[in-house]
Amino acid sequence: MTMMETTMKDSIRVPGFSGSAVASGIKNGESKDLALIFSEVPARATGVFTTNRFKAAPVILDMERIKQGMAQAVVVNSGNANAATGTEGDADAATMSKVVSEALGIEDRFTLVASTGIIGEKLPIEKIVSSIRPLVDGLSADGLASFAEGIITTDRFLKIEHQKCSIAGKEVTICGIAKGAGMIEPNMATMLSFVLTDADIEYACLTRIFREAADRSLNAMTVDGCMSTNDTAIMLANGVAGNDSMGETSEDLPAFREALLTVMDSLARSIVKDGEGATKLIEIIVEEAKTVEDAKKIAYAIANSNLVKTAFFGEDPNWGRIISAAGSTGIPFSTDALELYIENMPLFMHGMGTSGKQEAAGIMKKDTIRVLVRLGMGSETFRVYTSDLSHEYVNINALYHS
Amino acid sequence: MTMMETTMKDSIRVPGFSGSAVASGIKNGESKDLALIFSEVPARATGVFTTNRFKAAPVILDMERIKQGMAQAVVVNSGNANAATGTEGDADAATMSKVVSEALGIEDRFTLVASTGIIGEKLPIEKIVSSIRPLVDGLSADGLASFAEGIITTDRFLKIEHQKCSIAGKEVTICGIAKGAGMIEPNMATMLSFVLTDADIEYACLTRIFREAADRSLNAMTVDGCMSTNDTAIMLANGVAGNDSMGETSEDLPAFREALLTVMDSLARSIVKDGEGATKLIEIIVEEAKTVEDAKKIAYAIANSNLVKTAFFGEDPNWGRIISAAGSTGIPFSTDALELYIENMPLFMHGMGTSGKQEAAGIMKKDTIRVLVRLGMGSETFRVYTSDLSHEYVNINALYHS
Repeated sequence: MTMMETTMKDSIRVPGFSGSAVASGIKNGESKDLALIFSEVPARATGVFTTNRFKAAPVILDMERIKQGMAQAVVVNSGNANAATGTEGDADAATMSKVVSEALGIEDRFTLVASTGIIGEKLPIEKIVSSIRPLVDGLSADGLASFAEGIITTDRFLKIEHQKCSIAGKEVTICGIAKGAGMIEPNMATMLSFVLTDADIEYACLTRIFREAADRSLNAMTVDGCMSTNDTAIMLANGVAGNDSMGETSEDLPAFREALLTVMDSLARSIVKDGEGATKLIEIIVEEAKTVEDAKKIAYAIANSNLVKTAFFGEDPNWGRIISAAGSTGIPFSTDALELYIENMPLFMHGMGTSGKQEAAGIMKKDTIRVLVRLGMGSETFRVYTSDLSHEYVNINALYHS
Repeated sequence: MTMMETTMKDSIRVPGFSGSAVASGIKNGESKDLALIFSEVPARATGVFTTNRFKAAPVILDMERIKQGMAQAVVVNSGNANAATGTEGDADAATMSKVVSEALGIEDRFTLVASTGIIGEKLPIEKIVSSIRPLVDGLSADGLASFAEGIITTDRFLKIEHQKCSIAGKEVTICGIAKGAGMIEPNMATMLSFVLTDADIEYACLTRIFREAADRSLNAMTVDGCMSTNDTAIMLANGVAGNDSMGETSEDLPAFREALLTVMDSLARSIVKDGEGATKLIEIIVEEAKTVEDAKKIAYAIANSNLVKTAFFGEDPNWGRIISAAGSTGIPFSTDALELYIENMPLFMHGMGTSGKQEAAGIMKKDTIRVLVRLGMGSETFRVYTSDLSHEYVNINALYHS
């Protein structure tokens, strides 16, 4: 059912969507820092947002608007998070939306806003306002890569992933664009993701599969365990493909869902690979847990352990740190039943280390490494992506001043 | 009531206790790695241990024996954790105890064991067994500093703290000795603490005040958020001072409790100061929480945030990272009511940053820094000690191989 296809990133198009980005001067340079996605018709819209008590002004605005289930534009600035900026910040987010809506000639309630950058500094709203006209004028069906460029801060590479699949004979596209956890400037702790599709899909169904995909990708990764004030993931489905609207019982839903999972999994991997100072992508899988929550808690305990992360940076198969992290969560399991593998190499079984450490040392040199923990307590699984902890991480986060 | 006194560490004596340490060759060098504390009479004993599912063999042995409420000797090795070593490890811990008990001529059930070092490697039990005789022969009332030296791994300084106080006219001593969270060898993640007193104190009372003191000191600190397989804190009270046995209603209990809190707080500060790669001691205080658990959760979220820890290393008053960490825990509070201070300088109030950042930059250069978060939700407080995250931390944990 699913047709996979890879095209050049700069030629990715999603029918009915256009993108644009300009340098408005927020970053005080030539870098693009103001970006726009526009759908020629109002699209079904769903989203997930940070659960931090401190939510940035645009997050508060979006959480309210997304309840309508429809949106037509998303305007994003990088370089300033518009977080912890008080009522002025709320007003700035509203202004950003209003000026964009007027320029596009759409209802303001259909515009969403996202920001990423320094916390606690007032948004330079005049710079933004005076750049909206060129931003809107620059909209183009080929502009999604430009949008991707406009939302990054210090990411080392652009993050655009896409899949095509067919629904009742109509080809539809799913395209995900993200900004990574590159926090090279202080307070840059934001993950932004935007997923666009021209498929027609019912709101409830869209929301369910988007949340499921987010839980298995964006909500299953960590760079430093720190939750941002601005995390935002939005999906827009504009229906321009003209397929019969998909619902829970549609026979093409599984293929669409699969394509969405693939796009969002690729985004997650890409964000972690580009994590601050990251030299490796590590996949931690916890199997045979009693509940998914248990598996998740243990997977995150390993994924966020500085001792585990520095061992990976040092390419040392230091399994003691991994089992010790697994044991630290308070979740009961038999230490004799737990098994630990790096790739396919068993390192710990029957309550003791194996003789596999030497061989594992070779595996540790790889760029992408899979760690598997079997608990022997049940049949539930969780997988999380993490990165290693390097000198560069400390450089990025300590030496650059806010 | 309480008489404070500072003496040279090498002359600290606790009546009825003697200490000793030798180089048994576990560390493959001249360093002392086998240490002993002996009480001339069986002492009341209480302890707290790691809650990690993976408990080292000596921890399992001690947790069982400490239930008796009495102990007379503690034998400790450094350089090998005897953790994840299977049934052989259990047998080795039992042998270590048995040989010491025989050499001392005491009942084996009154001997406790502790280990710290590499996880997953078999204890070189022959080296230990053949060093027990000289270890016991070396016991001396002036040997507590030698014991302190024998239990460290890569600590930069010894950790011995003491206080004297008087109980019904009798002077008693409380002496705490710890090994810090210096994990310069891989897998060295252990905190060991031993508190000795010559006071006579009832078991239930001793246990209550020791647990309280541990909760406010050893259980209120973090270097890297990683829980060890070997963490052990034991208190022995041998009653040699000859005071009337103290109980919950004794009028001298408050002074004794205060002295114990002081000793254990000093140990905790000392351990965090000597944390891996630490350049600063940071005290995170959360006030005005609804419950102590809320205050503790938020304090630890800040204390374990790599973004916060690297900002302190970089001496950057990056308050956005601190409030964002506070907001990440899921605990409800009003973001407009939260106040953040570094020392006495307010940095965040009324939902926005203050103008104090410039001045705070100077405060960040200090060695010891206090961070105060007021939640405005209630009247409960928790304080945790943490260290910064430096290049040296990554060096220590990544570059040295297991």
